[in-house]
Amino acid sequence: MAAFRATIVGPAFLQNVWPRAPKHLHLAGRPRFAWVPILKLPRLIRVRPGVDTVKWDLADIAYPGRYSSRGQGIMGSFIDSSLSLLAKQTHPVISLAMGCPGPDAFPLEDVRRITTEIMEHEGPVALNYGPTEGDPLLRQSLLEAEAEATGLDIDPDCLIVTSGGMQGLDLVAKLLVNPGDPVVAELPSYSNGLATLHNYEGNVLQVSLDDQGLSVEECRRYFDRRGARPKLFYVIPNFQNPSGITMSLRRRLELLDLARSYEAIVLEDDPYGDLRFEGRALPSLFALDEGKGTVIAVRTFSKTFSPGLRVGWILAPKNVVTKMIAAKQSMDTCTNVVGQKIVAQLMAQGVMSRHILRLRHEYRQKRDLMLQALERHFGSLGGTSWTRPEGGFFLWMTFPEPTDAEKLFPVALEQGVAFIPGPAFTVQGGLRNAGRLCFTYPLLTEIDEAIRRLRYSYGLWASFGVEGAAAR
Amino acid sequence: MAAFRATIVGPAFLQNVWPRAPKHLHLAGRPRFAWVPILKLPRLIRVRPGVDTVKWDLADIAYPGRYSSRGQGIMGSFIDSSLSLLAKQTHPVISLAMGCPGPDAFPLEDVRRITTEIMEHEGPVALNYGPTEGDPLLRQSLLEAEAEATGLDIDPDCLIVTSGGMQGLDLVAKLLVNPGDPVVAELPSYSNGLATLHNYEGNVLQVSLDDQGLSVEECRRYFDRRGARPKLFYVIPNFQNPSGITMSLRRRLELLDLARSYEAIVLEDDPYGDLRFEGRALPSLFALDEGKGTVIAVRTFSKTFSPGLRVGWILAPKNVVTKMIAAKQSMDTCTNVVGQKIVAQLMAQGVMSRHILRLRHEYRQKRDLMLQALERHFGSLGGTSWTRPEGGFFLWMTFPEPTDAEKLFPVALEQGVAFIPGPAFTVQGGLRNAGRLCFTYPLLTEIDEAIRRLRYSYGLWASFGVEGAAAR
Repeated sequence: MAAFRATIVGPAFLQNVWPRAPKHLHLAGRPRFAWVPILKLPRLIRVRPGVDTVKWDLADIAYPGRYSSRGQGIMGSFIDSSLSLLAKQTHPVISLAMGCPGPDAFPLEDVRRITTEIMEHEGPVALNYGPTEGDPLLRQSLLEAEAEATGLDIDPDCLIVTSGGMQGLDLVAKLLVNPGDPVVAELPSYSNGLATLHNYEGNVLQVSLDDQGLSVEECRRYFDRRGARPKLFYVIPNFQNPSGITMSLRRRLELLDLARSYEAIVLEDDPYGDLRFEGRALPSLFALDEGKGTVIAVRTFSKTFSPGLRVGWILAPKNVVTKMIAAKQSMDTCTNVVGQKIVAQLMAQGVMSRHILRLRHEYRQKRDLMLQALERHFGSLGGTSWTRPEGGFFLWMTFPEPTDAEKLFPVALEQGVAFIPGPAFTVQGGLRNAGRLCFTYPLLTEIDEAIRRLRYSYGLWASFGVEGAAAR
Repeated sequence: MAAFRATIVGPAFLQNVWPRAPKHLHLAGRPRFAWVPILKLPRLIRVRPGVDTVKWDLADIAYPGRYSSRGQGIMGSFIDSSLSLLAKQTHPVISLAMGCPGPDAFPLEDVRRITTEIMEHEGPVALNYGPTEGDPLLRQSLLEAEAEATGLDIDPDCLIVTSGGMQGLDLVAKLLVNPGDPVVAELPSYSNGLATLHNYEGNVLQVSLDDQGLSVEECRRYFDRRGARPKLFYVIPNFQNPSGITMSLRRRLELLDLARSYEAIVLEDDPYGDLRFEGRALPSLFALDEGKGTVIAVRTFSKTFSPGLRVGWILAPKNVVTKMIAAKQSMDTCTNVVGQKIVAQLMAQGVMSRHILRLRHEYRQKRDLMLQALERHFGSLGGTSWTRPEGGFFLWMTFPEPTDAEKLFPVALEQGVAFIPGPAFTVQGGLRNAGRLCFTYPLLTEIDEAIRRLRYSYGLWASFGVEGAAAR
């Protein structure tokens, strides 16, 4: 593990230094000259930069007792980690796992042109620090777009640009969630969002969804029975991740009423709302709140344009945004300026809205193909069902009991298709016989084949179990 | 404040809705048709997107009792906020305030070329999610550069790419600092770093610097007297922000010894180390630690290349990096991929190292000019002194007692020069008769004039006070 090549200044080295070399440093080769600090004898030993190499083992140093309590139990993301897992596959795998735009879903030519323009006309500004609250043109464009889409004319100080929607969730949890605070989330819900709430040591209670969205009545019963109140409701009202379900208007109003009765905040995470393929758009919870400050809205360009640029935004009462600006200054100073300027120009030049129209069309085709494929391959399998989302990225698949989707997963991967098993969308496990399928990332031509492979994997798993399936 | 234009479907409106309109909504114009949710009567009222506008007042909604305890006392950055303050000035101001590269300090042509190449050859990858731990080429290049510069051959799993150095500090504090944990920082120290430690509710103790760096003996006496031990030492060993002081080798070794005796972690923040103009480079605390895991190193490209791209990295024991990856998945998923790829190419193509050589040369000139200007304009003013940094961005100016730099600040701004007053670099105030001057951001031709204006402002303030100075 450890390898060391060093050179010695003088004969003192062997006498003084060698016996005191740290145990995990092994000297090899013919030492001539080595480095001060490593062996603690000033001016005697030196590693020559670019010539000598010291390898040491930082791999197995645990930090017992040094982590904070939030650090001790920190929770990551099965979804994000699945990127690495997928990268390790040596055979072709069609991924229905990540919630990504398809590789064919970027307005590349426009981005290339706009990036060149930015570098030419405002390079020194784009490469330097920007205001924490966000690029002025981007903020103005976002407010105008919100006004145009919903009729809301919002105070500019109620908007902050964030490093993706994820940082929006992080900021809200940081400012609002105390250790032990009861926080309601949907069951199932977005893994990373759940992790954020958990990582600020919130006590996350997941309440099930029906076809109208979060079961508000179940929330009310739960808390009223205990004489307790939640601090926060975390919901994804449109084409929910992972279920694809959209919260009905009535349910939205009920949720707002309930939240107000508890003096709780509703955290509205809406990455997919602009990607509606059919039916009428419903007003956002933020709009429905009539400016009462019950709702904090988290938005992002990650699903409608680019996750890699990491640009999102938050709408919240001005006082809250003021605190968010302060918090963000100690988190990442500002959102990457080049990304903000690219998005601002895409909006200002009208590219963004055309792009979203195109995505709606293409993603609708992909959804339809997946629904057809599911009918074709799983239609005759009793106990199987899936949701039929009106937009977004995902549908939710339920397999016959007692399927274990986590055990089905490696079989499916082996057969060349990836999805995310149900338990990834829970804090405490459960939903073992279900999983999330993303229909936007695979190519049109891959979708039927992906579902065919999933059906075949299910058959293998059901007949032979994981080991047996692997052996076939 | 509130303005509302709406249209009514039918005659039921005036009867049913108008009396129940929320008090903060004022209806104006001739309403014909308005929106369901706003007035809570489904299917009766609708605001037409793109036509009607509702303005509501989210400005004065406070969140009493809803903030978390960390949210309640969240601390921002005087430095970052000064950007907005500067932007509001209507007369030309030479800024010695922000710690920015100069507007003339970007390799614009290379960035433009490389960005175009990235969009052409790997656009769909650059615009999509990347691995949380960072772009593979960038991570490899960083490890190679570390090996070349210091002789350290580090396990790839000990490195994570971050959204600037600031997120590095945030990750470390998140994982290690419990509310109330004693944390040592230098006095003065980087505002945003102090804010991060404070915002995780660490109990920040600032210990003064001498010309060798942090007064390690003072730390030892302080904690030994109380029978307590700190959890973390936060230090900026090279060309410290804001003092410009470099921690001597002996002091570095003493600090490591002390930290180990307390089983504490040393958080080494080193944005400026590569920008040494003279003298010999000292080994980093991370290198001096010999792989014992005492030190977590936070690095960034913000000072050597671009703050706006938000790319930094951390070196830490593998187990800690594993936790950081999990934590980052719930903070911002991954660092913006385009920025990572630009930096990776700048390194791989050899542009970065040439650029840093150029910066060393230019920044040295700027430092020399500022030192000359200080001698010229302040040399005869008793009780004034300044540091003479061997590299980096800043020097620290001490004015005669009893100068109040916060009161001098608006006078200087009025006279066309900005700096950061001393108290911004403390958690609890103090250092009122001092301030930080950045010599890298102003143009060469502006430096003497900036210091002349500062001297003139000081004279005005000393003779007439703030009000008097403003009146002149």
